Amino acid sequence: MNDIETRIATARGEVKADIVLKNGRIFDLMTGELVQGDVAICGDRIAGVFESYEGEREIDVSGRVLVPGFIDTHLHIESSLVTPFEFDRCVTPRGVTTAICDPHEIANVIGSQGVRYFQEASAHTLMDICVQISSCVPSTHMETAGAELLAEDIAKLVGHPSGIGLAEFMNYPGVIHRDAEAMKKIRLFEDAHIDGHAPQLSGRDLNAYIAAGIRTEHEATTFEEAREKLRKGMRVLIREGSVSKDLVALQPLLTHLTAPYMCLCTDDRNPLDIAEAGHLDHMIRELIARGCPALAVYRAASLSAAEAFGLKDRGMIAPAKRADIVVLDSLESCRAQMVFAGGVEVTDAAFDARETIPPVGRNSVQAPRVSPQDFRTTGNREETDVIGIIEGKIITEHLHETVAFEDGDKRPDPSRDLARITVVERHGKNGNIASGFVRGFGIKGGAIASTVCHDHHNIVSVGVDYEDMALAVNRLSEIEGGFVVARDGKVLAELSLPVAGLMSLEPFEAVHARLVELREAAASLGVTLEEPFLQLAFLALPVIPALKITDRGMVDVTKFEIIS
Amino acid sequence: MNDIETRIATARGEVKADIVLKNGRIFDLMTGELVQGDVAICGDRIAGVFESYEGEREIDVSGRVLVPGFIDTHLHIESSLVTPFEFDRCVTPRGVTTAICDPHEIANVIGSQGVRYFQEASAHTLMDICVQISSCVPSTHMETAGAELLAEDIAKLVGHPSGIGLAEFMNYPGVIHRDAEAMKKIRLFEDAHIDGHAPQLSGRDLNAYIAAGIRTEHEATTFEEAREKLRKGMRVLIREGSVSKDLVALQPLLTHLTAPYMCLCTDDRNPLDIAEAGHLDHMIRELIARGCPALAVYRAASLSAAEAFGLKDRGMIAPAKRADIVVLDSLESCRAQMVFAGGVEVTDAAFDARETIPPVGRNSVQAPRVSPQDFRTTGNREETDVIGIIEGKIITEHLHETVAFEDGDKRPDPSRDLARITVVERHGKNGNIASGFVRGFGIKGGAIASTVCHDHHNIVSVGVDYEDMALAVNRLSEIEGGFVVARDGKVLAELSLPVAGLMSLEPFEAVHARLVELREAAASLGVTLEEPFLQLAFLALPVIPALKITDRGMVDVTKFEIIS
Repeated sequence: MNDIETRIATARGEVKADIVLKNGRIFDLMTGELVQGDVAICGDRIAGVFESYEGEREIDVSGRVLVPGFIDTHLHIESSLVTPFEFDRCVTPRGVTTAICDPHEIANVIGSQGVRYFQEASAHTLMDICVQISSCVPSTHMETAGAELLAEDIAKLVGHPSGIGLAEFMNYPGVIHRDAEAMKKIRLFEDAHIDGHAPQLSGRDLNAYIAAGIRTEHEATTFEEAREKLRKGMRVLIREGSVSKDLVALQPLLTHLTAPYMCLCTDDRNPLDIAEAGHLDHMIRELIARGCPALAVYRAASLSAAEAFGLKDRGMIAPAKRADIVVLDSLESCRAQMVFAGGVEVTDAAFDARETIPPVGRNSVQAPRVSPQDFRTTGNREETDVIGIIEGKIITEHLHETVAFEDGDKRPDPSRDLARITVVERHGKNGNIASGFVRGFGIKGGAIASTVCHDHHNIVSVGVDYEDMALAVNRLSEIEGGFVVARDGKVLAELSLPVAGLMSLEPFEAVHARLVELREAAASLGVTLEEPFLQLAFLALPVIPALKITDRGMVDVTKFEIIS
Repeated sequence: MNDIETRIATARGEVKADIVLKNGRIFDLMTGELVQGDVAICGDRIAGVFESYEGEREIDVSGRVLVPGFIDTHLHIESSLVTPFEFDRCVTPRGVTTAICDPHEIANVIGSQGVRYFQEASAHTLMDICVQISSCVPSTHMETAGAELLAEDIAKLVGHPSGIGLAEFMNYPGVIHRDAEAMKKIRLFEDAHIDGHAPQLSGRDLNAYIAAGIRTEHEATTFEEAREKLRKGMRVLIREGSVSKDLVALQPLLTHLTAPYMCLCTDDRNPLDIAEAGHLDHMIRELIARGCPALAVYRAASLSAAEAFGLKDRGMIAPAKRADIVVLDSLESCRAQMVFAGGVEVTDAAFDARETIPPVGRNSVQAPRVSPQDFRTTGNREETDVIGIIEGKIITEHLHETVAFEDGDKRPDPSRDLARITVVERHGKNGNIASGFVRGFGIKGGAIASTVCHDHHNIVSVGVDYEDMALAVNRLSEIEGGFVVARDGKVLAELSLPVAGLMSLEPFEAVHARLVELREAAASLGVTLEEPFLQLAFLALPVIPALKITDRGMVDVTKFEIIS
């Protein structure tokens, strides 16, 4: 018998199932009922539900609730700072059995090779990693990335079994103004799946963006914005990342009526948050605690996500679906007692049994060696553009301050919370260095620096002391990228990220421990932000309003212009 | 500019739309709101909604409600007794802009050529006809059809742009018992779309059927049956045909919670019903009148149908979607004031402008010439199996009566409502003739006969007078198939169906007029059934319980056995 025949025979009870989960209550997401019964698993699929079955292995799950595995509908696995294998080990036990990722962080450093790394890794993880093809590498032409993906490069990446479609089309001005290269990419996916990214776009411009065939949106940050996008037919993905936190604002939109068309995603979630609060399981708990009906939340977490992305083989505990099953203590607490991913029980042994593939993107940090005077600002205009941080958001304010010009430099001023921010090109392309001002870190001394710097992933440093900034930046070249905190000529804490300057080779737990040290070291400089490195990482992303900085200078995102 | 660029420019208001529907209220099916605003149409798609637009043509629809075009999720267009072009002309003005059809009636007569006829016709109709590939031709091996579609024939029909997947897999015993040819067909569509047909299947057998990868079901006739199928992940299609009427029974299942996973279909609906009551518009009115929320009903009629069948380009009035729009007087009355199908206004002129393709399946009736003695029953057992008709259902009862054996025959007995039923093979294969008894027509004299006889479409006749039965059957050979009513040696009424013995070459209105005459003529024989020819048509379908008849004899469907 082949797979289908075995499954049919198992469903009829003619042969024993591989695994039977006995006597649980299955949360049926189509009718909304909790139904008592067995689940028979055959290979990677479910064969039968609700009836009584015998299995080679039988597991009593009485008193438990069974829900379909959760689907993260948009994320960059690189933001977990670990390899896809460690991400799998860290997140799958929480019930996330599908991750629809966009590998555009690594693609900005090493191009197609980075996308292929995720495609190949997806064959070996317990969770199912769906790899969207990155659409906007680099995000704009106002930055120097390590690589560029043209339409012709994208065409070559299409067709891998892990693929669904084109990843978030961040260059929304390029779409609505019909930029030639943007149109080439859109046409490659005509009537196929294209993910969206259009913060604050509305009215006729939003119509234009959707008219291009773009189907999803995860950048809505207010109720009204999300509702307009939903009304116009976009699937709205509620995002709760480590910096971008939209759950509270969008929660009122998630009702029984809208849940079939809404999903959940994390976008960029760091190991601290994953370890300390959770992943999609955290979102589910929060949404229910804030008053969303459990059915609406679990639909958004699996069935509606499967529908939105055309994944007809999952999203329900039902015959023929993937055996992606989360055994919970209760719907409200959403604590996974046991997880099955494609029929495999998620255990340490199962993780250990995975084949892995070698990492790519080693020795990717090719930055000039910098000295303290490289951090001085040029220009002598006292009216100064300042990036204003909004904690917990990746959008920023565009502030204007007067900064005196002294000794050919406009200096940081901790008393007014005006820190230097500098981006150093690190792909070995041009050695660009651009500086500006930022408010919101609260930094009083020393410097922090990072190679996680969306999306071009150059080196970004914030500090009030040029010596320490130079030290931190130069240290990143020595450790193949990562995070550094320096003060008084000393490195206080660091984390090496040798995979493209983005991901560690260490286990998740070791990375978490380092991040705790880094958080404490940053706090010792006076930094008041809860997630200084993640907040820092988005200050260089010129597709999110309002004021950002790249290696080419400060960018007014609302005008799509480099202003200094 | 290409199509996408023009659409984007239109959405932004840079160029005029082709058509703007101004000031209507759009029923937004994702949020459930009625939103005032314009709809801008560009070519066959919608460019913009809710905002204000200018158009080459502007139509004031103030006071009207706009909903997405309706999707009939399962039907046999042949049952309308007209060509796809006339079906289009008759049904599209009622708001049905997509018909997901299974051409298995014509395929049973002329095979792949019949499927191709529908595929080619679909390119020329105003509505979008999606042609599923017929899975079970013939429906079983207990009948003689004009053609057979093996897995290898099906494989050659895949890939046409009108296709979605495999049509209703009626041979459910073949699936759950893993018949080799059934498995070959199922494997051709592994992880693709397969429609279901599994009346009264439940429990582990239903699990087995779904485990084969079958996704939809339109044969559920009770609330409990439909709920079990929904719970197990099948999309349940509420059917309201001319004979099979499930709307009343299933209506309570259609709620705000379930509507995203339920659809509407007509399966087999005849011109009388279409002209006199309507099509999906009739179902919508009825469901709302019976208490279903309007949002649930309109979702089932379009958005949920689009989702169930993976038609991501329709189901919403939103940018990038097909401009399939119905302008209604009100949601409750569902009277289409104006319909747009793929951006084309549905008018007489638009129908006249269509190219058509020549009909196929001419001269398909190749039956032996019969004489009255061919209708005598063989056998001398007095205990007699009788098909018991249930009006408005295609399932039948298996009755047992005692019929005296006289002069080597068991005669019809109008006083006990026991009529002769006879099937005559008409594909020129073997000239089989099989007879039995049926109760429920109320026929007192004469005979009726038809070549619409599911699914093999041999000649079926019901009567109490062998002379008239022979006359009616022989007349069908002369008129290339159709319907005949005869009494006292005269044809009282007839309709010729020269396209494979199934479809007329006349306009819809002429067919309707003939059917009115036939209905009256049948009533003059004493026939009490409202739809005698449609009810008759299903008495020969051996995949619907309980007792049926084919050219090979009476069939006990519950046992899948020919019993006489």
